[in-house]
Amino acid sequence: MEPGSYAHLDHDRLGRTGDPEVVFGLGKTPAQVAELLGRLHAAHPERAVFATRLDDAALDAVAGAHPAAELHRTARAAVLGPLPAPHGSVLVVTGGTADGPVAGEAALTVRVHGAHARVIADVGVAGVHRVLGIRDELAGADCVIVVAGMEGALASVVGGLTGVPTVAVPTSIGYGAAFEGLAALLGMLTSCAPGTVVVNIDNGYGAGVHAARVARRTGRDDPRT
Amino acid sequence: MEPGSYAHLDHDRLGRTGDPEVVFGLGKTPAQVAELLGRLHAAHPERAVFATRLDDAALDAVAGAHPAAELHRTARAAVLGPLPAPHGSVLVVTGGTADGPVAGEAALTVRVHGAHARVIADVGVAGVHRVLGIRDELAGADCVIVVAGMEGALASVVGGLTGVPTVAVPTSIGYGAAFEGLAALLGMLTSCAPGTVVVNIDNGYGAGVHAARVARRTGRDDPRT
Amino acid sequence: MEPGSYAHLDHDRLGRTGDPEVVFGLGKTPAQVAELLGRLHAAHPERAVFATRLDDAALDAVAGAHPAAELHRTARAAVLGPLPAPHGSVLVVTGGTADGPVAGEAALTVRVHGAHARVIADVGVAGVHRVLGIRDELAGADCVIVVAGMEGALASVVGGLTGVPTVAVPTSIGYGAAFEGLAALLGMLTSCAPGTVVVNIDNGYGAGVHAARVARRTGRDDPRT
Amino acid sequence: MEPGSYAHLDHDRLGRTGDPEVVFGLGKTPAQVAELLGRLHAAHPERAVFATRLDDAALDAVAGAHPAAELHRTARAAVLGPLPAPHGSVLVVTGGTADGPVAGEAALTVRVHGAHARVIADVGVAGVHRVLGIRDELAGADCVIVVAGMEGALASVVGGLTGVPTVAVPTSIGYGAAFEGLAALLGMLTSCAPGTVVVNIDNGYGAGVHAARVARRTGRDDPRT
Amino acid sequence: MEPGSYAHLDHDRLGRTGDPEVVFGLGKTPAQVAELLGRLHAAHPERAVFATRLDDAALDAVAGAHPAAELHRTARAAVLGPLPAPHGSVLVVTGGTADGPVAGEAALTVRVHGAHARVIADVGVAGVHRVLGIRDELAGADCVIVVAGMEGALASVVGGLTGVPTVAVPTSIGYGAAFEGLAALLGMLTSCAPGTVVVNIDNGYGAGVHAARVARRTGRDDPRT
Amino acid sequence: MEPGSYAHLDHDRLGRTGDPEVVFGLGKTPAQVAELLGRLHAAHPERAVFATRLDDAALDAVAGAHPAAELHRTARAAVLGPLPAPHGSVLVVTGGTADGPVAGEAALTVRVHGAHARVIADVGVAGVHRVLGIRDELAGADCVIVVAGMEGALASVVGGLTGVPTVAVPTSIGYGAAFEGLAALLGMLTSCAPGTVVVNIDNGYGAGVHAARVARRTGRDDPRT
Amino acid sequence: MEPGSYAHLDHDRLGRTGDPEVVFGLGKTPAQVAELLGRLHAAHPERAVFATRLDDAALDAVAGAHPAAELHRTARAAVLGPLPAPHGSVLVVTGGTADGPVAGEAALTVRVHGAHARVIADVGVAGVHRVLGIRDELAGADCVIVVAGMEGALASVVGGLTGVPTVAVPTSIGYGAAFEGLAALLGMLTSCAPGTVVVNIDNGYGAGVHAARVARRTGRDDPRT
Amino acid sequence: MEPGSYAHLDHDRLGRTGDPEVVFGLGKTPAQVAELLGRLHAAHPERAVFATRLDDAALDAVAGAHPAAELHRTARAAVLGPLPAPHGSVLVVTGGTADGPVAGEAALTVRVHGAHARVIADVGVAGVHRVLGIRDELAGADCVIVVAGMEGALASVVGGLTGVPTVAVPTSIGYGAAFEGLAALLGMLTSCAPGTVVVNIDNGYGAGVHAARVARRTGRDDPRT
Repeated sequence: MEPGSYAHLDHDRLGRTGDPEVVFGLGKTPAQVAELLGRLHAAHPERAVFATRLDDAALDAVAGAHPAAELHRTARAAVLGPLPAPHGSVLVVTGGTADGPVAGEAALTVRVHGAHARVIADVGVAGVHRVLGIRDELAGADCVIVVAGMEGALASVVGGLTGVPTVAVPTSIGYGAAFEGLAALLGMLTSCAPGTVVVNIDNGYGAGVHAARVARRTGRDDPRT
Repeated sequence: MEPGSYAHLDHDRLGRTGDPEVVFGLGKTPAQVAELLGRLHAAHPERAVFATRLDDAALDAVAGAHPAAELHRTARAAVLGPLPAPHGSVLVVTGGTADGPVAGEAALTVRVHGAHARVIADVGVAGVHRVLGIRDELAGADCVIVVAGMEGALASVVGGLTGVPTVAVPTSIGYGAAFEGLAALLGMLTSCAPGTVVVNIDNGYGAGVHAARVARRTGRDDPRT
Repeated sequence: MEPGSYAHLDHDRLGRTGDPEVVFGLGKTPAQVAELLGRLHAAHPERAVFATRLDDAALDAVAGAHPAAELHRTARAAVLGPLPAPHGSVLVVTGGTADGPVAGEAALTVRVHGAHARVIADVGVAGVHRVLGIRDELAGADCVIVVAGMEGALASVVGGLTGVPTVAVPTSIGYGAAFEGLAALLGMLTSCAPGTVVVNIDNGYGAGVHAARVARRTGRDDPRT
Repeated sequence: MEPGSYAHLDHDRLGRTGDPEVVFGLGKTPAQVAELLGRLHAAHPERAVFATRLDDAALDAVAGAHPAAELHRTARAAVLGPLPAPHGSVLVVTGGTADGPVAGEAALTVRVHGAHARVIADVGVAGVHRVLGIRDELAGADCVIVVAGMEGALASVVGGLTGVPTVAVPTSIGYGAAFEGLAALLGMLTSCAPGTVVVNIDNGYGAGVHAARVARRTGRDDPRT
Repeated sequence: MEPGSYAHLDHDRLGRTGDPEVVFGLGKTPAQVAELLGRLHAAHPERAVFATRLDDAALDAVAGAHPAAELHRTARAAVLGPLPAPHGSVLVVTGGTADGPVAGEAALTVRVHGAHARVIADVGVAGVHRVLGIRDELAGADCVIVVAGMEGALASVVGGLTGVPTVAVPTSIGYGAAFEGLAALLGMLTSCAPGTVVVNIDNGYGAGVHAARVARRTGRDDPRT
Repeated sequence: MEPGSYAHLDHDRLGRTGDPEVVFGLGKTPAQVAELLGRLHAAHPERAVFATRLDDAALDAVAGAHPAAELHRTARAAVLGPLPAPHGSVLVVTGGTADGPVAGEAALTVRVHGAHARVIADVGVAGVHRVLGIRDELAGADCVIVVAGMEGALASVVGGLTGVPTVAVPTSIGYGAAFEGLAALLGMLTSCAPGTVVVNIDNGYGAGVHAARVARRTGRDDPRT
Repeated sequence: MEPGSYAHLDHDRLGRTGDPEVVFGLGKTPAQVAELLGRLHAAHPERAVFATRLDDAALDAVAGAHPAAELHRTARAAVLGPLPAPHGSVLVVTGGTADGPVAGEAALTVRVHGAHARVIADVGVAGVHRVLGIRDELAGADCVIVVAGMEGALASVVGGLTGVPTVAVPTSIGYGAAFEGLAALLGMLTSCAPGTVVVNIDNGYGAGVHAARVARRTGRDDPRT
Repeated sequence: MEPGSYAHLDHDRLGRTGDPEVVFGLGKTPAQVAELLGRLHAAHPERAVFATRLDDAALDAVAGAHPAAELHRTARAAVLGPLPAPHGSVLVVTGGTADGPVAGEAALTVRVHGAHARVIADVGVAGVHRVLGIRDELAGADCVIVVAGMEGALASVVGGLTGVPTVAVPTSIGYGAAFEGLAALLGMLTSCAPGTVVVNIDNGYGAGVHAARVARRTGRDDPRT
């Protein structure tokens, strides 16, 4: 078997969708991750490509193979190549400390896909004044990503405060009847806040791709960069 | 079979627990409901007894058999005998219009079990200012009951605003991934607001019994009655 | 009880989110639906308000109370007041004939929320050439809504063909292991197409709100109107 | 990143609810737990704060950082600062030996939140005489917490014996069809004993917060302290 | 198609297992039920055969076709032919009034399968004294059947009181988290009382067959007949 | 805490039910298991007591503390004290090799509870001739235990061949849609063979207690001992 | 809207797959069914087309619109146009009487798709001799379809008797833990008989399409026609 | 216990079904796997037998005991004895890299069972052009196996492109709402492509047995061998 024949990269995705393919690290060996990231980079040297869901061994393998790669250990991801200039901005809001890795993956995905990203952490619903305190930040974003576990109520509160397009990411944080993210997933799907859309449990990547697409389309250059 | 032999009423419950037995109407014929309510009343003429989960036919049968009965059609319940003087007060808060019958059952149960009850309806989380507007009412109650369907996020927001003992009632309002109350049930069980306790889906009666027990124990006579 | 006291309309939602409140017909009487729609219209006479999830009786009640209302029987909805000028355009694609009502609700919601909507029906995955045949339409939209039941695979195929922001709506069409939309819901949540976001089963309204928000933000006036 | 910026403690919770924030140890590093507990203690030196769900490493980290901390290894928790004087008393009853850690967490939570707590262990329903033997203890409590796994039937038996407000905690003890606490959770939610309220699986903390709030409100100083 | 060709009766079952085949009425037309019962009776005129799960139309059809048939409307069953002399006795205990039809089916099945059956109804766990009051009856039986819905805790309490072989039948009585018998089923499967065996939800027939087999094997002629 | 105060043994169970209490090893330390087994033995020196669900460490601890104990490593159990003389006989049949430990636990439980036990392994349904080959053994037993994982079809085939009381034990053997025993559990509960009763997944102990109670009652001394 | 614009028939399917499109009647009006069947027939007059999942009204509408149509009321289907000459033969085996409609749909689908079909009904596993009695018929088929509800064990027994390709169809027959076909579905998916493949609950059509494709490929002209 | 008495091999299966028994490695020790494979080989020296679901230790044990064995580490399987000459050909298509082991098990099973197998990997639906690019290969096969995780949409797309008998294998690849293969399983069961049949999650073996049986029956000698 020739090297890398275990995967057929979809180099054409950039042409079809405007977004490059990603290396999804789950279930791949560190060596495979490093090699595939290199192949993606070779195909698209002019813009950033990245790999997600990396454990420490995979991150180390990427660092070893690609000294120019930028490692994001909290987000469990690595980027190779120059980030695109951001168009539009995405605000990522989290319900608790433990939602950090998913929020980090979302924010990094947004940046790789061409928009600006900012994270405001630990805005739990049990202290609703904290949510109310970020109304201006919500209103100023082109797209909002809400990351929350347990009952996921943050999506409903945020969704009721703003008309900015909002994506909810349930996380697997919690125990017992949280059923590894199911409670948050069902809660976000049945949210009483109109227009809330949802991605898979812990899928910061998916939320980031959608949010970046929305933000990029506003055509507003982000003033912060 | 002698009349009424299909049910062995637990007349001793009042002695054991301080609360009278209730006629649970689900699965009983209108005639059975009316007769059982009469038997409960005969055993405890000095204080109110009641029947819950009554359809229109059962309510009519009760009205026909017991002209003195007080009918609560929205709450689908009927009361017979004098209500006890209320001790302590319970506030019932609902997320939406459709939660009304469950909230009504809860409030009536509270009153029958010896506490004062007040209902504030339609305080949805998607308009969080409505919740903030009732902070004084929450603080003034001896026990709070939160009734909400869909994602049930109201329990988390209320639970974060007050230290009053709070009981959450998920309702079967919603569709699709609400799974007939399951989303709200899981959401309330995993609420990030500490101390939230939960009863079965649509179980206004159970929430009312617990809340009345809590409120009665405060020993404060309700100033409103 | 004064008329309409069973519901506290959130007239302020327009100010907070840019979108008017909707009358959600499920669990409301025809008279309630008609009255609430009238109250919404009185509060916002300058722009369309609407009611969803209406059965025939509710549609008739609306028609009787509001001769100016526009009825959409397939979409089970009614609109009152002038539709806003559309900004941006949304394409609604369905997998099968039976997905029509949900697609209709989505399209109408888009129009009420200020964007243009077009429906292309019956583009099932089992005949993938039909999906390939609408690539230009997909590319030309500002947001795409994919409505599909059974296994919901249409979302993955469409999501792989275009980089336009895409919202997937699982429907309850199917039997057996479709589990009233659960198979489609899980399939869309785990779609291999990056950036697919999902709403509740049969929730055309929610998809429409999100899609309209995205489309409006593009600032492109729709050439077709 | 400045130290501790990964978490925004809700110091105001004490003012809103009368209860201090807790450090929830799950998913936090030992160092984070120790530091956050120290910050809570610094904000509220006059009354006990605590941390729950600690593994041995976290308990050791707390012990190292805070020699004054009181460690509860069975309850997997640690307390820092003087316990408040107890008002009212809570009885914690368990179905089996393996429910001990959850019962310990509940009892400790009760004490930190200002009420007296007593645990009676191993009162399984399969030997119902053991339950009947503690009727006096049940009657003398201001609130009862029932901790049980497997089928959770203890909640129904206790709930039928007393009118004291009762909170049921399902535990994940069991195997097979216990589904990690689901059987006990469903059983407690559908208990035939009126007024039973339930918290999440293994959530001794939540039951303790609610029970302490109820017990404190009785205003009876506990004679045992 | 010749009459009755839609079903191949297993006339040999009596030889293999000692028990006659039953007509399971669910999904059969009244005419089919009546005809099949007649065919069974013709094949085994010397001993009773019967049909279960009959609605009113099926019961009427049986009465019309077989005037000698004994109808049991509560148990939704019909018997044709002489009952066998009973060997051994089975006690059927129910948790509530609504469990009556399932208990009736179980008791009738026991009798048709050759043992004596007695029903004690409405022995709910929430009044545990009622269970304790029947200890002698439990001890005197050759097999016990416990029929209960909601949380099904009665099986655990009875199972802890007696060493008589005990079969638990969960019923679909309840609402919400009872999930049409699932809560009772899981509770009975995970009962802490050793030796509890379980049948399908509402399956009084299956419990009756097993119990009769156990009771018949004791070889004790029932003194009551 | 005095030694052993973590568990209140139910020494009276023998008097109530005729069966001694068992040490359920799951969740107990090896030292606890050894001590509790010793206490049970001290209370009932005249007859065997035993401990189940033991891992290697617990088995070693028992061996160290009680040299007279009989260890059953496949069944993961240990017995202390003289086995009672067997009355009646139980046949344990398994579907596959991997069901061995559960079958072993069942057989050992039967012997400790006073009946004879024999195991016939690996009688899978996919080779139905193997089942037919043991018809005589089935007919000669006083009670049959069927242990099977995956789809659990063995219970239906055995149940159709014999009228001997039969207990089905689903095991967690399998993968994917076996859902750790759920497929076998549901299959056995809905078996088309009349009179099949079921215990919890992997619960060889429960099946053994029931089967021994049934077999003992036949009063036939087992000729093989 | 022009007539029939609610559905885009996939006339090209015959070219791609060798099989004509079918009219799936669920969720379509009788008039739509009749019209669509006519359009299919017009496009393929030389070979049979058909419609499935028809209620009585749809069957009547088809009969009225297409006097040449062949109605199959048990199978709830209708055929229009000449059946193709059969190549190869399929044997359909059912577990019980109530599986008849699904078996009928499967058999009719086989014939419409170009193979011979024969049904042997009521071969339940609880009487395994009935299965053994059809070994020759199994061996003589080119493909076998097993239709069974409840626990679905028939698939395992048949699958162990023959090496002929076998398709299992779980049906929704049963109650309680059958969960509308889920028990049979899981049982068939985890069958210990190698090579068993499964279709959706009650999906006789899907099984028929697959079986016909397999049978046709054998190239053996069926001697019975 | 004599060596190997823990398993009764079904040597007769070859006679009944034309296929040899397999050693299913899950839950067996390496030594057991090696010995059982040897016994199978001794019984059928003239044709290949094999073992599946082997971890590295089991593969090493097989290699040590049977130097002639052919090891397939990706497919986690080992073959002993000469492969039969292939009749007919099976095409195995996978959705992603991580589906490789299941696809390998399927392909190897096909070859051991007497047909030719070819694998085309990584034909994900999100790049539908990759599926369209293998239409000729699909058309040329005698049976197709589709292996896919996540939402499993590949089965629907392939099923719509070809009339070759197609077996779908859901894999446990994915996270969150993939629920370890459940999403793919439900999606494949409800596929809109007619005639799709499904096996258990990750069951490459079962798909291979069925596909080989179908391919062998075509009677076409494969030109490639």
